[in-house]
Order: sequence, then structure tokens, then C-alpha cells
Amino acid sequence: MGAYLLTNQGIVAEDTVLYPYQERGLQFGDGIYEVIRVYQGEPYLISLHLDRLYRSAEAIKLRMPIEREQLHKQLLVLLEQNEVDHDGSIYLQVTRGSAKRLHLFPDCEPNFYAYTDALPRPLANLKNGVKAITHKDIRWHYCYIKSLNLLPNVLAKQAAAEQGAFDAIFHRDGTVTESTAANVYIIKDHVIYTHPATERILHGCVRTQLLNLARTDGLVIEERAFTLEEMLTADEVFLTSSGIEVLPVVQIDGDQIGSGVPGLVTRRLQHLYDLDAGL
Amino acid sequence: MGAYLLTNQGIVAEDTVLYPYQERGLQFGDGIYEVIRVYQGEPYLISLHLDRLYRSAEAIKLRMPIEREQLHKQLLVLLEQNEVDHDGSIYLQVTRGSAKRLHLFPDCEPNFYAYTDALPRPLANLKNGVKAITHKDIRWHYCYIKSLNLLPNVLAKQAAAEQGAFDAIFHRDGTVTESTAANVYIIKDHVIYTHPATERILHGCVRTQLLNLARTDGLVIEERAFTLEEMLTADEVFLTSSGIEVLPVVQIDGDQIGSGVPGLVTRRLQHLYDLDAGL
Repeated sequence: MGAYLLTNQGIVAEDTVLYPYQERGLQFGDGIYEVIRVYQGEPYLISLHLDRLYRSAEAIKLRMPIEREQLHKQLLVLLEQNEVDHDGSIYLQVTRGSAKRLHLFPDCEPNFYAYTDALPRPLANLKNGVKAITHKDIRWHYCYIKSLNLLPNVLAKQAAAEQGAFDAIFHRDGTVTESTAANVYIIKDHVIYTHPATERILHGCVRTQLLNLARTDGLVIEERAFTLEEMLTADEVFLTSSGIEVLPVVQIDGDQIGSGVPGLVTRRLQHLYDLDAGL
Repeated sequence: MGAYLLTNQGIVAEDTVLYPYQERGLQFGDGIYEVIRVYQGEPYLISLHLDRLYRSAEAIKLRMPIEREQLHKQLLVLLEQNEVDHDGSIYLQVTRGSAKRLHLFPDCEPNFYAYTDALPRPLANLKNGVKAITHKDIRWHYCYIKSLNLLPNVLAKQAAAEQGAFDAIFHRDGTVTESTAANVYIIKDHVIYTHPATERILHGCVRTQLLNLARTDGLVIEERAFTLEEMLTADEVFLTSSGIEVLPVVQIDGDQIGSGVPGLVTRRLQHLYDLDAGL
């Protein structure tokens, strides 16, 4: 954990950042967040993350307490101040502020903070793949908003861990949406399928970047939803997010996917990702 | 606001209750809450609220940091300590604790706090009724859990206020569930209809109590879901919650309900409520 945080008050010492108990984040989950990947001290895809942050704010009618340009600059200063020269992450959240509890929007300044942390690359998982379970998508309707209402994600991720799996893959009535904190893809006959960027999934920054890289590489992509059945009989399955990169899934609900090891297309995409991120 | 709060540390001064920025409540909305009505210093339906609190905790696998008996006693001490002798409320929440951010359940002590506040009865609204709008139910699947994931409720309540209405009434594909913070009832031909206590609605404490009172009074109740259409053509519509009591709705989406004033059955139920609460 870095010794400094970025807040409304600028860059401040970690132990000075405390929240009153009447806070919109704490009482309503009334806020948004981002997690930005950092490789060797350099943020990756930071523009896409900041684009999404301001889009999330607009979607919940949250007035951002800092201009985008200014925020971008300050995050770079934060990385420097915390002497981040390793692989890590920036966590950033904005809430509607601290005010007496009422559902209606309060008349107060939104609160934000950002901190840095060490986050090693998940090399063993990237090489060997992981297990997943399937789970009913119990979340709200606007999953494209990166909100702090994460209880369903927490419960599903915990359920996965209790079954010895890395993650839970959500489906709505049999249609796969995404996992608790990542986008989901399948490969069938060399075509990459992933849920279109509707209200039902988070529009992942790695998703956006990877689809561009794959198209440039000549791979075939169809942004269309697929069923549980199609996923379980796919040649390859993988997940993407800023933390887990391009992560092969080799077993779902105890059943082997494809040959049970990371497939050719997934490994090609990992290679494209590595090149793009300078790894 | 009372000068004291009840927390894991017992009864403490208000200004000492601060939360670190890595808190499950603040980063995931990973917690539950209750709002208990207080009339003239006495809590109303406190046993039903505590029952529900422990049920909510079980539903999200949250280990309660205090025994129920002990909590009940301490809340009474809190009311005394804060010299609450007026109409008010107790707000109480429990989060999974303060820990480094990871979706998986952390290994730490859950945090809780309770505070008291003044809350006058909404006498004008009770007499005249209120306006409401209808709104798509955009919430997650487990609305029976009184969780801190309240962003959809916040957004819908704000949308109502911006249209000059008191509340937004949710519907899933045309079936009315509840409002942003209250249960919803209609009356048609002297029968009271309300959504059954499934996963799709909060099992309101006032709802439980009022249905019992109404049955004892010989009124006819059917716990079955109704459509938007049925609601808009009902003789009477009303809401219940600990804050708003038995609140008539006299206009929805600009259309008058029944005769446009609080109806006979609703007023009878208000009377039964007042008697039960000693008002």
C-alpha cells in the first residue's frame, strides 16, 4: 500500500483519510470506482479507465469533483510520490459525499480518493488456467455502470472460492453475461464470441483494447451473447480484466473445457496483450 | 442527531466514529441495515426489526458481531443516553469489516453502529396523500435482504422528486413489486392486495404488523402480485414503511387514484396503526 492517497484535499498521508459514518458510500453504495493496472510504475489503458469513470458518473448523475485532465495528472503524481516502480494498481472511487442519510441527492461535495498498491502479475494462473463455476446473474440492470453496489459480486466470488474455483461466471436465464469482475469469452471453430457491450455487462477496458488488438491481428470476433451450453462445449474459454489480464478457464462446474489446457487462440491473445502492455 | 452512537466499542461519542477508506461498506456496500421507528422515546416493532436484521445477516453470510439480546438491550440504553423522548428513529448498520480490498470475505471483525435521530410523523402527507411515479424495477434479485446496495433506490427516489412526486413505485415487466423504500398495496372492491413476501420485495415490519391488524379487524387481504394496470385503476393505493407509516397515494404518473383523496380502507388502516403504535 502506498503511503500517500489522492483525495479532494490533494495528496495526503494515508492515515489521515477517514470517513464519517454518514457517508453516501457507506450507507447507500452511492458511488463509482475504477481499478487501473500499473506495469513497472506505468499505468496501462488509463485513458480508457478515465473515460469510463466519467461515463459512470454521468450515468448516476454524480458531479465529478475534479476535472479529468487534472485527475489524470494527479494520478501520475501519486504514482511518483508512492515510488511505484513495480507492477501494481491504482484504486479510485468517488461517492456522492458525506451528508445526513436521505435517499435524495444531498447538497454536498462528492468525496474521492485514489491509492496505489502492489499487484504482481498472476503468472501461474495465466500459464495453467483456472477453474470457474456458473452462477445465476443476480445483479441489478445497469451492470455497465462501475458502481460500488458490489454485494452480488462479493457473494458469487465467495461461492466460487468455497467450491475451489477462481471465479463465478454469471448467466441470465441461461445467457452468459460476465464473471464477478471480468468479461467472458468463448472460442468455437476459431471464432471469438463475447457478450455485446449492452447495459448487462461492464464495458471492460481490457475488453475494448483486446478486441482491437485481435481484429488487427486478423482474428475473427463476434460480439454476440452465448448460452451456458455453448460455453460448456466451447473449444476455449477465457476471462479478461485489468487485474487478471487474459486468463484461460480450463474447467467449469467440474467439466473440462476443450482439451483442459489453455488453447491456441487464448495464448495468441495473451501474446498480443503482453506486446501491447510492454510486458 | 444524538450525541452518542452504539458501536463495537459500546456507546461512544458521535465524533469518534470514523471509518478507514478500506471498508467493506464503503467499497462494496457489503453490509445490512435497519431503520427502527421511535414514538415518544419508545421503539416500535423492535423485535420484528431485529428478527429481520439477523435474517439479512444470515442471507449474506455475515457473522453478527453482537448477540441479539445484547443488541436489543444496548439500543434501549442508547435511546436513554441520547435522551430521546420525542418521535424519532434508530438507524443501525453492520458491514463485513475494514480490510484490504478483495471481493472474497475478509478475516476481520464486522463493524456496526447505531444512532438515533429526530423524525417527526409525516402528518400532512398522512392526511392528504402523496403523488408517485412508476419506475422499472432495476434492482438485484434479492430485495428481501435489507442490504446497503441502495443505488437503484437512490436513483429512482431522485427521479420521483425531480418529477414533483414523493416516491417511485417499482414494477418488473408490469408487475408491481414495492417502492424505493416502502411496500405497496392496492384496494379494489374492498379487498387489499399486496405483493407476496418473496425474494422480490423487502418483508416490511410495518407490512407484517399491519396485515395482522387488518385481518383481526375483519378486512380481506390477498397477498398476490398485481399489475401496473390494476394499480392505476384501483380504488385506493397506499404505501407502508417505518418512516412513512400508512401513507395514501392519490396520484400516480399524473393520474388520479380513485376519488383523488385518501380512501376509507386506507384511513381505517391508519387508525388501526395509530392504535397499535399508541399514537
